[in-house]
Amino acid sequence: MVPFVSVENMMRLVHHIGVETVLAELTDVIEADFRRWDSFDKTPRVASHSREGVIELMPIADGSTYSFKYVNGHPRNVVDGLQTVTAFGLLAEVATGYPVLLTEMTILTALRTAATSAMATRHLVPKGARTLALIGNGAQAEFQALALKAVCGIETVRLYDTDPSATEKVVANLATSGLGIVACSSAQQAVEGAQVVTTCTADKQFATVLTDNMVGAGIHINAIGGDCPGKTELHRDILQRADVFVEYPPQTRVEGEIQQMPADFPVTELWKVVAGTAPGRRDPRQITLFDGVGFAIEDFSALRYVRDRLAGTDFYQTLDLIADPDDPRDLFGMLQRAKN
Amino acid sequence: MVPFVSVENMMRLVHHIGVETVLAELTDVIEADFRRWDSFDKTPRVASHSREGVIELMPIADGSTYSFKYVNGHPRNVVDGLQTVTAFGLLAEVATGYPVLLTEMTILTALRTAATSAMATRHLVPKGARTLALIGNGAQAEFQALALKAVCGIETVRLYDTDPSATEKVVANLATSGLGIVACSSAQQAVEGAQVVTTCTADKQFATVLTDNMVGAGIHINAIGGDCPGKTELHRDILQRADVFVEYPPQTRVEGEIQQMPADFPVTELWKVVAGTAPGRRDPRQITLFDGVGFAIEDFSALRYVRDRLAGTDFYQTLDLIADPDDPRDLFGMLQRAKN
Repeated sequence: MVPFVSVENMMRLVHHIGVETVLAELTDVIEADFRRWDSFDKTPRVASHSREGVIELMPIADGSTYSFKYVNGHPRNVVDGLQTVTAFGLLAEVATGYPVLLTEMTILTALRTAATSAMATRHLVPKGARTLALIGNGAQAEFQALALKAVCGIETVRLYDTDPSATEKVVANLATSGLGIVACSSAQQAVEGAQVVTTCTADKQFATVLTDNMVGAGIHINAIGGDCPGKTELHRDILQRADVFVEYPPQTRVEGEIQQMPADFPVTELWKVVAGTAPGRRDPRQITLFDGVGFAIEDFSALRYVRDRLAGTDFYQTLDLIADPDDPRDLFGMLQRAKN
Repeated sequence: MVPFVSVENMMRLVHHIGVETVLAELTDVIEADFRRWDSFDKTPRVASHSREGVIELMPIADGSTYSFKYVNGHPRNVVDGLQTVTAFGLLAEVATGYPVLLTEMTILTALRTAATSAMATRHLVPKGARTLALIGNGAQAEFQALALKAVCGIETVRLYDTDPSATEKVVANLATSGLGIVACSSAQQAVEGAQVVTTCTADKQFATVLTDNMVGAGIHINAIGGDCPGKTELHRDILQRADVFVEYPPQTRVEGEIQQMPADFPVTELWKVVAGTAPGRRDPRQITLFDGVGFAIEDFSALRYVRDRLAGTDFYQTLDLIADPDDPRDLFGMLQRAKN
């Protein structure tokens, strides 16, 4: 029997621990796994593209644990009242191939994406940063705000979205968060006075959410929304001026902001900064850019975190997912006996 | 909510329809999908190899439906009373990326593997074949026997396994099947008088289950057990004398019996035989060999079959797998409201 965490149980688990605590703990477990980067068997995700969107499988394993995530990206879903991104995932034992956890990952992906931004930000942000600009106020926005509050000491969030009702949603959802909230009427206005800018817009196009003139010295940018071929958020002039940090270069060069740049465009692997073998921010006036696309290790970390945190709770059901005859060679006998 | 078919419900569904009817219907739905081969977006499976075995993801899609299967292969599992091969799978809508079916696939894989052998056999077998030799009497054996009975008119099965208790298991399980059963003490003895030979052994090694001298003219062989790098069943001399039929050459050249042969070893794609654009058996004395490794289209067909056959039954539960907030951008609001 395989433990299964439903959407409802995931929400119960998150509230049982506390949202900000989950975000802070996830940041730490992802960082611990990034530090042992070389112990993972990494492959770019396997994508099935269609006119409407993409369905991806993101497998990864270390010597003892295997995980994969199923995730879709369908920007037009929102028109029909459906989620743009939904996901579920699985942990299995490498030694036996048997699944040990199946869980919803729509909520968990939102949490781990924000935690990954927080991890990048805490290594790259200029000292004393207290203000975040959030461009794109969709499903990822509140998670980004709370992760950067919990992990990086952000106190004020400046919001902008092309759709004012999206901004109103975030204002309402964060009203009791303890964060100062400023709704802005342009991206230009939102970035004023912010030391950290997170872009997390959803449109599948080559967009220009930030132009070069909006980005001053000493800023850290998390560019989260540009995460598949044909979907970017930043003007390429920003990439020219910034030092760019990425998760897994073979994947980011295809999916990230740097798909706009030549194949040899210089990037730094974020795991090396985390591990202390590559410099992060070297200068208070430097522009640092985390070109985040989401990598399988982050899901692996999140799945293991959920598994650890489930222990001793009742926030799961068990599923009869794997046939388990008494004699493993006697699958047919098991089927036959079930007839009676 | 996503319909989920547990192991127990899969067994109920199979008995509700009847095992042989399922095998015959599966053969037809797989054949229908093989006939429209070009309408699928095909990729070789994504394998994560370890010392103990392999975990694979097998995705595939046509214009409207996406499927993937998770399947492991751990030959040593049997020592610990675990299944060598376990699996589960998913169907999703291409247009939205939303899952529409999650199901156990350990039993379903056994059924579709046998149905695929039956499909190959009915196109390649010499006329009037009534006797099957089954070398390897593990978890796949009974399914092969019943599929070839239901689809190809096999009346007698001659059994051999290096472990006599495996043969005894099959003898007992097929006692009331209507098949004539002959337990043999060697592979040589088993193939005597058989027009069809299926090899389905489990050891991960370069084995020689059949040697050249055992294979006479006019035989059809289903070589099912050799299905990953380092795992083969036939002596290469047999491959030299036979006409070899495969599912998807880029996968079979890595995983099948023909991994022993040069990269340009001639093969015929089975779908072309099914579609009538390539010859199958041309001569009663010809040796035909289906070098089956299992391909994602077969799982796609099986998943769609289960989905169709579930309609109007109660052989499933529903799983709260995908978060579905009223406003798709308000994932955080949904989480927040769950607190109360």
